Amino acid sequence: MKLSAQKMDLARKDLPLWKEESGVLKRTFAFRDFTEAIEFVKEVAYVAEARDHHPDINIRWNRVTLMLTTHEEGGVGSKDFSLAREIEASSLVAER
Amino acid sequence: MKLSAQKMDLARKDLPLWKEESGVLKRTFAFRDFTEAIEFVKEVAYVAEARDHHPDINIRWNRVTLMLTTHEEGGVGSKDFSLAREIEASSLVAER
Repeated sequence: MKLSAQKMDLARKDLPLWKEESGVLKRTFAFRDFTEAIEFVKEVAYVAEARDHHPDINIRWNRVTLMLTTHEEGGVGSKDFSLAREIEASSLVAER
Repeated sequence: MKLSAQKMDLARKDLPLWKEESGVLKRTFAFRDFTEAIEFVKEVAYVAEARDHHPDINIRWNRVTLMLTTHEEGGVGSKDFSLAREIEASSLVAER
């Protein structure tokens, strides 16, 4: 679903640590170590598969970058904000 | 361990699908879908943690790119070839 400019602004306010760049909603998460980073990736993968909406994922030892976009809309859409919000609720993220 | 030029050539012959670029040993693997790609990442993570040698990992739906380098040597070393060889032996890779 394409969001109005006003709704996009509201959606962004919920996610202050995510950046929108070139049609991609992006955040890098830092964890204690590689093992915890992989635990997080497994959680993200579970949610992504359940929603059939899969972020691009880069893993650099203890850091994980997620990049969300909605191809059918050529940019960031409601599915991306919604997935980002669910990921933010992960206990691994909430600890920080 | 720093390898001689001759040993590096031998190590490369074992790994025809890996490319060396700017001091990084790299291969992209394609899987059936996102779920299988994540299964592969979990296997790689297990081996990487056991060896305390962690590749950079990029996940793009069914594709996983691994990038190996040995920071202390400023380039590709024996740890990288050895980890790449173990990853090649994964049943998820061997199916292809």
